[in-house]
Amino acid sequence: MTVLTLLTDFGTADSYVAEVKGVLLSRAVGATLIDVSHGVWPGDIRSAAYILGRTWHRFPRGTIHLVIVDPGVGSARAALAFRAHDHWFVGPDNGVFTPVLHDAEVEAVELPTPSMASTTFQGRDLFAPAAAALACGAAVSELGQRFAGMPKRLAYTPPHHEGKVIIGEVIYVDRFGSLITNLSPELVPSYAVLEVDELEIGGLKQTYNDVSTGGLLAYVGSGGTIEIAVRDGSAARRLGVGIGGRVRARLG
Amino acid sequence: MTVLTLLTDFGTADSYVAEVKGVLLSRAVGATLIDVSHGVWPGDIRSAAYILGRTWHRFPRGTIHLVIVDPGVGSARAALAFRAHDHWFVGPDNGVFTPVLHDAEVEAVELPTPSMASTTFQGRDLFAPAAAALACGAAVSELGQRFAGMPKRLAYTPPHHEGKVIIGEVIYVDRFGSLITNLSPELVPSYAVLEVDELEIGGLKQTYNDVSTGGLLAYVGSGGTIEIAVRDGSAARRLGVGIGGRVRARLG
Amino acid sequence: MTVLTLLTDFGTADSYVAEVKGVLLSRAVGATLIDVSHGVWPGDIRSAAYILGRTWHRFPRGTIHLVIVDPGVGSARAALAFRAHDHWFVGPDNGVFTPVLHDAEVEAVELPTPSMASTTFQGRDLFAPAAAALACGAAVSELGQRFAGMPKRLAYTPPHHEGKVIIGEVIYVDRFGSLITNLSPELVPSYAVLEVDELEIGGLKQTYNDVSTGGLLAYVGSGGTIEIAVRDGSAARRLGVGIGGRVRARLG
Repeated sequence: MTVLTLLTDFGTADSYVAEVKGVLLSRAVGATLIDVSHGVWPGDIRSAAYILGRTWHRFPRGTIHLVIVDPGVGSARAALAFRAHDHWFVGPDNGVFTPVLHDAEVEAVELPTPSMASTTFQGRDLFAPAAAALACGAAVSELGQRFAGMPKRLAYTPPHHEGKVIIGEVIYVDRFGSLITNLSPELVPSYAVLEVDELEIGGLKQTYNDVSTGGLLAYVGSGGTIEIAVRDGSAARRLGVGIGGRVRARLG
Repeated sequence: MTVLTLLTDFGTADSYVAEVKGVLLSRAVGATLIDVSHGVWPGDIRSAAYILGRTWHRFPRGTIHLVIVDPGVGSARAALAFRAHDHWFVGPDNGVFTPVLHDAEVEAVELPTPSMASTTFQGRDLFAPAAAALACGAAVSELGQRFAGMPKRLAYTPPHHEGKVIIGEVIYVDRFGSLITNLSPELVPSYAVLEVDELEIGGLKQTYNDVSTGGLLAYVGSGGTIEIAVRDGSAARRLGVGIGGRVRARLG
Repeated sequence: MTVLTLLTDFGTADSYVAEVKGVLLSRAVGATLIDVSHGVWPGDIRSAAYILGRTWHRFPRGTIHLVIVDPGVGSARAALAFRAHDHWFVGPDNGVFTPVLHDAEVEAVELPTPSMASTTFQGRDLFAPAAAALACGAAVSELGQRFAGMPKRLAYTPPHHEGKVIIGEVIYVDRFGSLITNLSPELVPSYAVLEVDELEIGGLKQTYNDVSTGGLLAYVGSGGTIEIAVRDGSAARRLGVGIGGRVRARLG
């Protein structure tokens, strides 16, 4: 039974997710549909890419990942399908697949736009039929012409050194208000002291219970990079910091 | 494998949707449950009808659609089950099925209220068991007495002409803040100029990229009627217009 | 086909629920995953327990219930798996299973922490693998050492009498703003008059339609206890009352 994941910025109140699922189930009978998230901020390709990077590899091989965060819908941006790491990916060529492309050479195809497709809802009329075709056993190469060039990759600002300080930034803020940074534990030694703005957070802790309720802490998060959180509270709210906010690791 | 869709105003934070799903899966083992939306504003029958109208026909024939937006729960309004267009529908007789009834003569049955049913949660105790029975192969006629009369239909204000202007209205606002109108492209010629309040939006565009970021545009939306949107923004917020707001198409 | 329910405080916007589901589907191929709620307020064990108490028994025997509302993640609190009433339960030992333990003697096992487990996301790395193992047919006793002692139970303040008045409290507020109390109809005779703060609500009604739109009413709710609601409105907002708010039933 094929697993098909959905990652969109459609929200869950309107009809859009269900329209896509109806198309999928009408064509790929018995597919298992899994919502990754529909709560991506409209058009926020970076957050969608972050979520995709954390989730796709948790699913079984052969899973089809449908990603529809597509502010350029109807423009000249290509519609893609490709295989990487024994998973399949379908969505717009706008950088949202960056975390998948990182280690993989992929041969993508460019999906043709069906003549009757809505120009504003290609998730339903273009991407969902392509994903359903893959679920029914079609090869990627049957879905379109080979895509000339490589899929778009987002440019990230890597952490950098300024003397004895490593400067990173917040790349995602989650529901708990935890600030997820781009600082990896390989880069930041365990004796480093973390700072956000001018505020000292302290050294790396193991888990929330290493500070008391309401306390700020830094730790290696479940996504593999350093996070700043408040135990039983929101670091984003406490510190007034969001995506792009600077985080410093002082080494001495 | 039967597909069973759920469209409610229950929200997703409380136990209600899961209570319904537990009843469904206990009785219709192996059914595929699909959430259409649980984010309908409490009691908003019109928005629920709009969402149902956009979604039901996307699902495979034989799908059972459970609609529980039911501000009259426990009142004398009938509880219905019927078949239309080779789909099944279960829910209250309050107009929510209007888009399905449009082209179909239906023979509905009135579902009896189980003696132990909660008077405030018939979704769980009355509608879900009926939907599960259909999923298990019961005929509609086995579920209750034939419903005398036709299911209730919502009255809609159709667009009308005032000289060289067609007056329509906003019938739904989606998560992106797009204003979905009741103006169809059959009614509004391509040279028409759209206006909301006194503000001129311009002629019909193809897609968001026909204006620059932050620009207002009108286009034929994915639901088949004209929509007003802001590229990468919210028309509802920009214009301060919601459901019932007037939209004018000037023909000369 | 095994049914596996998920009840968390993860929200649905981030990657966390999907990471758990990926782990589940990778190990328990073909399991049916049902979201009970991911909208529990972060760390709100009491509301999670309330939701669990209303839902678990609606699902078929053999269902596995994964509950991850775990403010003490990474602390010394035990990670549990146990069987009760022919259902399985997996989650932290923090009281969230109280409604299941009420009538059942259970033999729980303490799940060992995998060496590679994140200290802040044991839902993915510890609880999900255990639930998946149960779905694949493992016995509870294979998952860990027998848990010494009984799982933690939340202490509830039971309703009490003050002369001819029964004093209860609000234990949950739902999306509609209905105030769900701990007063059972067995305790409160039908002639009682309900009060919230100094405001008289009146006697028990059958359903919303027993008052006019905007009217306050008390009735026996679908969870089996007395609720205070506003027809087509929110009692929580109208009365400014939330969890812990006092509700009085005057007997004469």
